[in-house]
Amino acid sequence: MEVKARAPGKIILAGEHAVVHGSTAVAASLNLYTYVSLRFPTPSDNDEFLRLQLKDLALEFSWPVARIKDALPEAGSLLSSKPTSCSIETMKSIAALVEEQNIPEAKIGLASGVSAFLWLYSCIHGFKPATVVVTSELPLGSGLGSSAAFCVALSAALLSFSDSVSLDMSQQGWSAFGESELELLNKWAFEGEKIIHGKPSGLDNTVSTYGNMIKFRSGNLTLIKSNMPLKMLITNTKVGRNTKALVAGVSERTIRHPDAMSLVFNAVDSISNELSTIIQSPAPNELSITEKEEKIEELIEMNQGLLQCMGVSHASIETVLRTTLKYKLASKLTGAGGGGCVLTLLPTLLSGTVVDKVIAELESCGFQCLLSAIGGKGAENLNGEGLAILLYEVPLEVLQL
Amino acid sequence: MEVKARAPGKIILAGEHAVVHGSTAVAASLNLYTYVSLRFPTPSDNDEFLRLQLKDLALEFSWPVARIKDALPEAGSLLSSKPTSCSIETMKSIAALVEEQNIPEAKIGLASGVSAFLWLYSCIHGFKPATVVVTSELPLGSGLGSSAAFCVALSAALLSFSDSVSLDMSQQGWSAFGESELELLNKWAFEGEKIIHGKPSGLDNTVSTYGNMIKFRSGNLTLIKSNMPLKMLITNTKVGRNTKALVAGVSERTIRHPDAMSLVFNAVDSISNELSTIIQSPAPNELSITEKEEKIEELIEMNQGLLQCMGVSHASIETVLRTTLKYKLASKLTGAGGGGCVLTLLPTLLSGTVVDKVIAELESCGFQCLLSAIGGKGAENLNGEGLAILLYEVPLEVLQL
Repeated sequence: MEVKARAPGKIILAGEHAVVHGSTAVAASLNLYTYVSLRFPTPSDNDEFLRLQLKDLALEFSWPVARIKDALPEAGSLLSSKPTSCSIETMKSIAALVEEQNIPEAKIGLASGVSAFLWLYSCIHGFKPATVVVTSELPLGSGLGSSAAFCVALSAALLSFSDSVSLDMSQQGWSAFGESELELLNKWAFEGEKIIHGKPSGLDNTVSTYGNMIKFRSGNLTLIKSNMPLKMLITNTKVGRNTKALVAGVSERTIRHPDAMSLVFNAVDSISNELSTIIQSPAPNELSITEKEEKIEELIEMNQGLLQCMGVSHASIETVLRTTLKYKLASKLTGAGGGGCVLTLLPTLLSGTVVDKVIAELESCGFQCLLSAIGGKGAENLNGEGLAILLYEVPLEVLQL
Repeated sequence: MEVKARAPGKIILAGEHAVVHGSTAVAASLNLYTYVSLRFPTPSDNDEFLRLQLKDLALEFSWPVARIKDALPEAGSLLSSKPTSCSIETMKSIAALVEEQNIPEAKIGLASGVSAFLWLYSCIHGFKPATVVVTSELPLGSGLGSSAAFCVALSAALLSFSDSVSLDMSQQGWSAFGESELELLNKWAFEGEKIIHGKPSGLDNTVSTYGNMIKFRSGNLTLIKSNMPLKMLITNTKVGRNTKALVAGVSERTIRHPDAMSLVFNAVDSISNELSTIIQSPAPNELSITEKEEKIEELIEMNQGLLQCMGVSHASIETVLRTTLKYKLASKLTGAGGGGCVLTLLPTLLSGTVVDKVIAELESCGFQCLLSAIGGKGAENLNGEGLAILLYEVPLEVLQL
């Protein structure tokens, strides 16, 4: 028996950094996914292992289920319908289970993800043997929400086998979750994110769960529905960032120049709100798609200027900006800055030839280019045997984690 | 008999564009000068021409003084102590005098400067034959105030021969003007600037006249005294700009995004005020020169980000920024943007080797590099025969044009 789930990455369209200082930010789902498939051995297989295969990295970890049961006894008593935080004590046991896997030094950043995996698996699914295969279209650690997509897709696959989620056996192809199921898997994914990131905002897992776009401010997340197709070129500079140091740098600059910086944060807030208004405005209104795109491009350019004012740009980001500017395309860094990814709006009427040229030029600088529609679907399940999940409309509402 | 005068160029340190929308801006004089020398023929020379030699451009224009007298009769009746605007009627006569000089097509931009010359010369000095030689260390039309420096130096040279200025015959070398003389020559230079630019702000001629630094906001100019040496690298991208179009572009963006842009302008205002406070703070205060320079560098970076937010940057400017960033130097565009000049602070402790490297790299991109101290002297006179002008201290006061 096998089930497959997928969950999208996210991109911040506006408001990174300023959001830490109370401004509004806007994030959207990508149509780049992390896929998690879950397969159970038949009794005749006589397989008593839990295996985690990270296909893209050609890594496999495995534990005898009995060892997991011994290490995490309380996980077995938890209900899959009650997302629960991992205690510090249990984290130590999990860390020991992860440590014995001898993760290669260069991939040691995966350890927290593997820990999250063990917690989510054991809590939602108990101590049954299985093979979990992960593949992803998202670059790791580049601010595109790869860890959240993993947690969401994993929770989605696991919950498909729990009593907490009801299944529509007739559904064919990728199918969405119902409202209460989404809420549940978002909460579980958030528990995983806490293991990986310590104090995540909950934004990444929420975007990955619900898809579409989210406006967030001071911990409040509001799901918003895009009324226009938006296509982005995402350029991964591959320059590693220290998000904490970048956030601290902005805070220090704010202490040194409180008046100027607070005005800058307010300007970002205004930009985020304008952006979400344009994106939500009804399709056939007074503004054509092209006019909307031009407005969005202007807001992207303005936001990038304000991020440069905060001091979080980087030479690699400037190279991307300069390159896309040659083609009159608007770009901004997305996420923490200091490297990481740059987003570039690709207007509807832009020719594929130009896109190819821009990509070729960016790739010749050693960057990785990804094309993605944004504001699409959230977590979904696929069951080759016709297994799938009831589909509900996701209402537009304020989600409070 | 010969007198020589010089007047410096100016650079905007902070606040360009935002100043149009009510923010404070800060400008400083450069130690790059325009020199005007004035030589009168002896009666035995039998020379009845007024000659204007632009040495850097290898151009000479000349008019029989009788022709000028016929064309501008009212100039002869004006007092050199009463700066007077050129009437539209007279401008037509001047235009005719300029037109007959057959200025090369590529240098047609000089026509308004030659017109200003004829007006200032005739008003201040009447219709006497002379040879006026102009040389300059300032690139033309790059936002460094070359036209104002010309008008100020010309007025300074001319006024040295008028009754309005008293001379100290004992002064050796370059000598400054007295307060009332500075006021007078600033007003004459402003009349010249009006002929060249239509509606100048008066900033350029005021900085060129008084030197030092000037804070300006809503038409009010305040002379401020720098308490620290500041050395700048000025990179002329040589990309021609359309200042009017750039100013209009910012205004249009302000109409489209009034909230965000007004916050951005206020942030610039705050940066300009911080900058002038640091520059004016007493030398041996709690902040060392290096600490002050670091603060100024941060303000430069912030101001540049806000200018990018206004949409007035340019690929050539970004190239300069990227190059100086490699050497950890802070830069911003100065003036209208869209090309033009970029300023880079050169900290006191920066080694000459690094400066040479940066300059070599920028020049290899086809840019012109100028080194300048800022906040130095204003208009000065030099008289080889011991002729010079009474020297007064320039008081710190609000100057209202």
